[in-house]
Amino acid sequence: MDVLARIESALDAALALGEGRGCPPKLAAAMRHAVFPGGARIRPRLCMSVAHACGADDAALVDAAAASIELMHCASLVHDDLPCFDDAAVRRGLASVHAAFGERLAVLAGDALIVLAFQVLPAAGVRAPQRLGRLVTTIGMGAGMPLGIVAGQAFECEPRVSLRDYQRAKTGALFSAATAAGAEAAGADGAPWRDFGDWLGEAYQVADDIRDVAADPALLGKPVGRDEALGRPSSASELGLDGALDYFEQLLGRVIESIPPCRGAAQLRALVRSEAERLIPHAAYADRARVAA
Amino acid sequence: MDVLARIESALDAALALGEGRGCPPKLAAAMRHAVFPGGARIRPRLCMSVAHACGADDAALVDAAAASIELMHCASLVHDDLPCFDDAAVRRGLASVHAAFGERLAVLAGDALIVLAFQVLPAAGVRAPQRLGRLVTTIGMGAGMPLGIVAGQAFECEPRVSLRDYQRAKTGALFSAATAAGAEAAGADGAPWRDFGDWLGEAYQVADDIRDVAADPALLGKPVGRDEALGRPSSASELGLDGALDYFEQLLGRVIESIPPCRGAAQLRALVRSEAERLIPHAAYADRARVAA
Repeated sequence: MDVLARIESALDAALALGEGRGCPPKLAAAMRHAVFPGGARIRPRLCMSVAHACGADDAALVDAAAASIELMHCASLVHDDLPCFDDAAVRRGLASVHAAFGERLAVLAGDALIVLAFQVLPAAGVRAPQRLGRLVTTIGMGAGMPLGIVAGQAFECEPRVSLRDYQRAKTGALFSAATAAGAEAAGADGAPWRDFGDWLGEAYQVADDIRDVAADPALLGKPVGRDEALGRPSSASELGLDGALDYFEQLLGRVIESIPPCRGAAQLRALVRSEAERLIPHAAYADRARVAA
Repeated sequence: MDVLARIESALDAALALGEGRGCPPKLAAAMRHAVFPGGARIRPRLCMSVAHACGADDAALVDAAAASIELMHCASLVHDDLPCFDDAAVRRGLASVHAAFGERLAVLAGDALIVLAFQVLPAAGVRAPQRLGRLVTTIGMGAGMPLGIVAGQAFECEPRVSLRDYQRAKTGALFSAATAAGAEAAGADGAPWRDFGDWLGEAYQVADDIRDVAADPALLGKPVGRDEALGRPSSASELGLDGALDYFEQLLGRVIESIPPCRGAAQLRALVRSEAERLIPHAAYADRARVAA
């Protein structure tokens, strides 16, 4: 099975775990709407790639870790789209959860997805209880306090915040959790893998800022220019578009350098390069060179 | 240390776990506001009492399990009070979280409390990884899909729902998780303890319905008559006040009967009786008898 098919199947199994007899059908539908169809699934792909690079021996636990990370990401999108935050009616080209199911079911779907992100772990971790404890800790840190994605979102409610802290928490934390969880699901130490996820998350956030001011709305799947409209910290507004592109290139270098020595390093570098091209196509740099010449 | 002091201390330690360097201070404050001062702390008391009755040998894990259950309960109160649900400005006689901190921080505080409810477990479960897996499963079932408290809240968005299913999920699920988690934290099987929590949760919900139509608002800490105003299923509106009082008495009998044989059974029965008196004072029955005479 290819990696994307494996991720979709792991997510389907995770949702099925919650769809027991008697469950409220609208909530179940809202949760599925939040998870399918997905975006690029970069976080679970990253988790699985690191697990593979660390010589994973427990496919069920790797699937569960990858699904957990993606469920947490989907939960954050559902709550970020709520009227009190971004008030976004569209997500990935479709109605956002609250636009399709109402605000109450959107709040509850996010809540239930957060819970499900933990529920999937013990179901798969019976043979490796020591790994389970590390995974719960890692996913908790990526999601919650003090510096997970929920904390990152809360920085928007603070009067002053450094752009770096905001981006590291809002995006980097779950990338870092994805790489550490991949290693831990394989029975390896997650700590050496955190920098890789951290830098990649920061690069991803900068790319998102660049795309927010520069991209075609049809490609992004959400309206363009929202960061500025919402007064959110953004590297594109802080550094300018050119400065942000330079910064993105620097970050990519750091991402590549931070891959720990392992037998899967070459594959991970290839994943990073294809992801970078998907986020900011080389055409963007070429345009800039032409304008500068 | 008495039980209530021990619970407050476990909750304080849990919140401190999330208050690492650099965390967003308003979110940290909103989370503390959601947890302190508490209500009767019935769920963690129940969890600790069952753990004690099962011969608990790991105080740190029992504290973590009890804190986890209460954090999940507090998270649900924060989200239930949101404008899109109950729109309650007051909780336990103080400003609700969204009234004090705004809607965005209320959504995020609920999210972060759900995550924290899982984060506390591995921090305490290093010596007992097998118990950890069972606890994550139990607390996930009590909180999320298919029939946890989030699912219970979602039944309010369904066109038709049986009162019993609604109440069992909305309240019983976390009571059942509290009793099972108490046993599991002590290394015992949680399953025989589920009925006890289930019946107690149902009794508690019926008492809440009775108090909603009959109690003094100052004692309840929230405005009276909200179930009817919000069109929510309620045993008091379905059975009438007298019928609901009869049903409450029947349920108490089942609660007592369902306590599994254990050396702490007498203490558990005493806890149930004092809790029942706190919820529906005998004066309520006496009044009824006088009116009937």
